[in-house]
Amino acid sequence: MNARESARAARAAAGPLSRTPRSLRDAALAAMSDALVADAPALLAANADDLAAAKVGGVAAPLVARLSLDEAKIRGLSSGLASLRQLPDPLGRTLEKRELSPGLVLERVSCSIGVVGIVFESRPDALVQIASLCLKSGNACLLKGGREALRTNRALAASLSAAAEKAGIPGGWMQLLETRDDVDAMLELDGDVDLVVPRGSNSFVRYVQEHTRIPVLGHSSGLCHLYLDESADAAMAAAIAVDAKTQAPATCNSIETLLVHAAAAARLLPPVAAALSAAGVELRGDEASRAIVPEMSPATDEDWDEEYLDRILSVKVVPSLEEAVRHINAHGSHHTDAIVASDAAAAEKFLAAVDSADAFWNCSTRFADGFRFGLGAELGIATGKIHARGPVGLDGLTTYKWILRGAGQTVAPFVDGRMSFTHREL
Amino acid sequence: MNARESARAARAAAGPLSRTPRSLRDAALAAMSDALVADAPALLAANADDLAAAKVGGVAAPLVARLSLDEAKIRGLSSGLASLRQLPDPLGRTLEKRELSPGLVLERVSCSIGVVGIVFESRPDALVQIASLCLKSGNACLLKGGREALRTNRALAASLSAAAEKAGIPGGWMQLLETRDDVDAMLELDGDVDLVVPRGSNSFVRYVQEHTRIPVLGHSSGLCHLYLDESADAAMAAAIAVDAKTQAPATCNSIETLLVHAAAAARLLPPVAAALSAAGVELRGDEASRAIVPEMSPATDEDWDEEYLDRILSVKVVPSLEEAVRHINAHGSHHTDAIVASDAAAAEKFLAAVDSADAFWNCSTRFADGFRFGLGAELGIATGKIHARGPVGLDGLTTYKWILRGAGQTVAPFVDGRMSFTHREL
Repeated sequence: MNARESARAARAAAGPLSRTPRSLRDAALAAMSDALVADAPALLAANADDLAAAKVGGVAAPLVARLSLDEAKIRGLSSGLASLRQLPDPLGRTLEKRELSPGLVLERVSCSIGVVGIVFESRPDALVQIASLCLKSGNACLLKGGREALRTNRALAASLSAAAEKAGIPGGWMQLLETRDDVDAMLELDGDVDLVVPRGSNSFVRYVQEHTRIPVLGHSSGLCHLYLDESADAAMAAAIAVDAKTQAPATCNSIETLLVHAAAAARLLPPVAAALSAAGVELRGDEASRAIVPEMSPATDEDWDEEYLDRILSVKVVPSLEEAVRHINAHGSHHTDAIVASDAAAAEKFLAAVDSADAFWNCSTRFADGFRFGLGAELGIATGKIHARGPVGLDGLTTYKWILRGAGQTVAPFVDGRMSFTHREL
Repeated sequence: MNARESARAARAAAGPLSRTPRSLRDAALAAMSDALVADAPALLAANADDLAAAKVGGVAAPLVARLSLDEAKIRGLSSGLASLRQLPDPLGRTLEKRELSPGLVLERVSCSIGVVGIVFESRPDALVQIASLCLKSGNACLLKGGREALRTNRALAASLSAAAEKAGIPGGWMQLLETRDDVDAMLELDGDVDLVVPRGSNSFVRYVQEHTRIPVLGHSSGLCHLYLDESADAAMAAAIAVDAKTQAPATCNSIETLLVHAAAAARLLPPVAAALSAAGVELRGDEASRAIVPEMSPATDEDWDEEYLDRILSVKVVPSLEEAVRHINAHGSHHTDAIVASDAAAAEKFLAAVDSADAFWNCSTRFADGFRFGLGAELGIATGKIHARGPVGLDGLTTYKWILRGAGQTVAPFVDGRMSFTHREL
């Protein structure tokens, strides 16, 4: 099937899927969980082919590591599917209920979006997580994974869709796209695709935004900051800085820049820099911070806009909390930014003023994650402001509709003044 | 100022505006309410200039009527501003609250979007309603009204922004754009504009979607349907059909197509057609409906996709409720669609299956309106599925941020198994 046919098939499945009861969707998740374990030999064989091709193709070692599947990973994915069943049904929730007039009752009810197109990186677990979130939330999906994982993704999609369809989910709800051309074709299909979710580089998200009329939920870079307030505790600052930078340096919720209040820089910078250096972090400081810790290499203007994804951290002394916020809002990616402060008023000022999806006080930016937030699983972390923001779980895969139930009411008597609205919350 | 300078000024105001307390925003609404009455002579003079130019320019009579302002309209707008004060604050609401671990508390809090760009038609009341909704929801705005209302809009914007700024709202929060070129320039400014709201024709909304990376909340056509189920009461069907078609035929929530179940067409169509004809509606029927009511003119295939905005209604006999839903989902604009039915099971099936922002049972489609829904006021009616759907009030002008407050927590102990998440709802 080409992308257009795939999108049509997904659209055809989306209506019936949106109306399936929770019990059917959860039964399908159970069947999918079992299928992964039962189909493990085929999945591992397909993955071995991908790995062999990657090695021949000279794919970098870290990517090969992310690409590889083993029995333990399959068991983890299988139990993830099983635990998704436990989450409450995101569909059919009454979000508002109001009597407009006696016998005329308005309800705002959560419902699935329809057809969602997701482009993601070469981790085989991504396909399983994304497809299962879509199923649980009643959405048909078009999935385009990394080129390097093509054979693995084919095997995973075959296993999961067969199990779901056998459990009673409408056929065609999950479609695998295989080429970049398929993605370009999908971006044209605003009649059959309701939402596009690009996970990847800033430039890829921007490309998608520029080439489609479909709403885009972008998951791009994480240029996150830690700001040490004048009132920060030095030991806490060091512990959080080390965790936020080194616990997993290649992740989007790790920090790239450390900002320090000028009045506390002489007190805070030496112990924080020592802790970071001991953890193997290269520090690049501005002039003011190098005056305190001369061992840092000098930062250039480019450093404030760079997502290192590595054990490198830029360091800057700022004259005030306001200037820290200004720097973050100007240079950050509106992802996750944190303050360390003992002064609660300063912290609340920071939390209100940073224009970020996640604003944290006295804890590591690494907590920005759907599982850690208690969302059960994560489609990604949205850096835009519209629809969903920050870690996106099942709720981000729903929209709502307004349902009005009456007994023959017409508008005319409300317009000519014979009747008036009660607007009573129910 | 050009569009870029306007957007920068709006962005500069947006941060401080987003952090103003409700009391300040409501005081500004009160000041704006008073200012409209105090500035009435200047507003009427500017409007008289617009009306004179419109007449010279040969603008059509209905547009001139919509364009005109008088003392009564100004009083209505003034009292609308005053009543907006009564609505609850849409900002700072806690949407979720969860303990992740003892002393580590996550909160999802509603907040303003930032800078919103709105393009709207030539009704002077539109500017007042839109600007005041933006202010109440803490958003800076770029406003582009219809060309014919330029002088009136300048006078209104001057009156409202002076009053708001005098009340303490950051200067620059409301910016007036004056040309179509300004709109095109705004569409490029994805760094300074967070949401674009085009109200207008389908082709205009599509143009905007094609020319921007900014999220778009489109308010386009209303191709609404009324479906008469096999179980419909004939008198109720006639009353709702007449109201939904004739109470205000030029509005987006009026119906354009009537669908009738085949098994009830002989019973329902004659009285419903008679009532519609008596109300001056031209009926265009398919073959099956003309076999029952031969007075109808024949419908062509184009009729099912046309938004007449006039006293014209297409009529079609369908073999089943499923086929009615299929027709609606294929030909409608996902705006508002209604069923008349005595059979509750059939009605619920319809409400679940129509892929529309508003799904109604036994009442007129004309109820689809922010004021009638109890939202207080309306930015427009969104026909997309993402972010806001159907009538958009203050909530549609907010987004949220995640705030995490801790006591020095790091992620490492949760990853290495020394600690585990409690995920306790608060």
